[in-house]
Amino acid sequence: MPRFALKIEYDGAPFSGWQRQNDVPTVQGEIENALRRLDPALTFIQGAGRTDAGVHATGQVAHVDLVRDWPAAELMGAINYHVRPNPIAILDVANVSGEFHARFNAIERSYVYRLLNRRPPLTFDRGKFWKVHHPLDVAEMQRAANFLIGRHDFTTFRSVMCQAKSPVKTLDEITITELPYPHGTEYRFFVRAPSFLHNQVRSIVGTLERVGFHQWPAERVRDALAAADRTACGPVAPPEGLYLDTVRYPADPFSQK
Amino acid sequence: MPRFALKIEYDGAPFSGWQRQNDVPTVQGEIENALRRLDPALTFIQGAGRTDAGVHATGQVAHVDLVRDWPAAELMGAINYHVRPNPIAILDVANVSGEFHARFNAIERSYVYRLLNRRPPLTFDRGKFWKVHHPLDVAEMQRAANFLIGRHDFTTFRSVMCQAKSPVKTLDEITITELPYPHGTEYRFFVRAPSFLHNQVRSIVGTLERVGFHQWPAERVRDALAAADRTACGPVAPPEGLYLDTVRYPADPFSQK
Repeated sequence: MPRFALKIEYDGAPFSGWQRQNDVPTVQGEIENALRRLDPALTFIQGAGRTDAGVHATGQVAHVDLVRDWPAAELMGAINYHVRPNPIAILDVANVSGEFHARFNAIERSYVYRLLNRRPPLTFDRGKFWKVHHPLDVAEMQRAANFLIGRHDFTTFRSVMCQAKSPVKTLDEITITELPYPHGTEYRFFVRAPSFLHNQVRSIVGTLERVGFHQWPAERVRDALAAADRTACGPVAPPEGLYLDTVRYPADPFSQK
Repeated sequence: MPRFALKIEYDGAPFSGWQRQNDVPTVQGEIENALRRLDPALTFIQGAGRTDAGVHATGQVAHVDLVRDWPAAELMGAINYHVRPNPIAILDVANVSGEFHARFNAIERSYVYRLLNRRPPLTFDRGKFWKVHHPLDVAEMQRAANFLIGRHDFTTFRSVMCQAKSPVKTLDEITITELPYPHGTEYRFFVRAPSFLHNQVRSIVGTLERVGFHQWPAERVRDALAAADRTACGPVAPPEGLYLDTVRYPADPFSQK
């Protein structure tokens, strides 16, 4: 059976996360429903990573096996047609070998977290940011973030529900930038690692926000990491600011068409 | 009675335009409902310009007379609180003299029109662009737009419903820029004039799009203007790409607090 890789963008707001569930709309479930219109024998698609309820993606990757050997551009158009009116877009489709596995072959993920300081309520971008009402100190947040770079026991920064066998992970990058936004300021966090623990990015961003608002000294983040204790974590940032940005593979399936 | 100027942003999608109507939600109606929670005697607010159903604003201006003399920041917070959950935000409030009139004192308006060429469907920005599926020639559109600058009879580019006494208007600026958008290209039109006819911006943009897609030579826009005949106009661009951007006054009421 021909295998295809899909690059997927979605607004997570109306979905109970990526993973298929009974009786509630999920991103995986809606894409599978669309694919079943093309291939009634379809069983499931495999995503690179599960995103929680309300979390967005601009570059999720999944693979799927289909009976028919579709031209990639035609398959992309057909899924986009049948997935309507969900806020899900297939950005790219590639015919890949049967060896390609969206989850197990991925060597790196990156997430973007968007935080906004703005006094008036949001109109156009509601549900796309974590909104606060105070400016944040980017330099102090970056200094605190740098304590987290490298290989560490991230027990402090993972959900108690996390099913990963080990809490030890390597974090390669946290870059925080300040961007203009009408009547406000966006603080954008770019976080990159081979893989993540459950709620790791939201736990880190929620903790760094405390530093940016000068409620926590930067060194408290270093101490919280060293404690390897979930109760040492700051508040967990809400899901609506989080975007699964990129999934990287040894060879980019979408550049080899 | 103290008079206040309001600067207003809204996502036009859920509204039947700016102007109050019975039984359908409008921007003016929702802001008046919110203000009536603060001042039950309130009669109406006066906007600088009416926007059609589906049209957005990032800088609409209105004035209102209230019984109580509110601190501006407190009034802004109170309206934003009571106008929820509508996608309407009061961006600024200023105490102005009883001479200030949002509509009659305005000396210039500017609109932004956002057009997007992108193959995948929109997810985050649905209803915020006119979406097309072909690239546009910006240089040719700009050349055609330049025929429209100055004082002309704009009969070709106004709705047959337009109630303005004269079709003669002065257009000061049309600037077209190309901007990056994920998996696409945005074409942004900035249009500035002392005042506009009904559907003038959408008629101009819809006509220029024909030029950008090489369906019309640029000179046909010059000839269409000279014809002063509504049937010479190109298609009218849809409302969801249009934003009322700025309303200018001899003295900016919001810089004088």
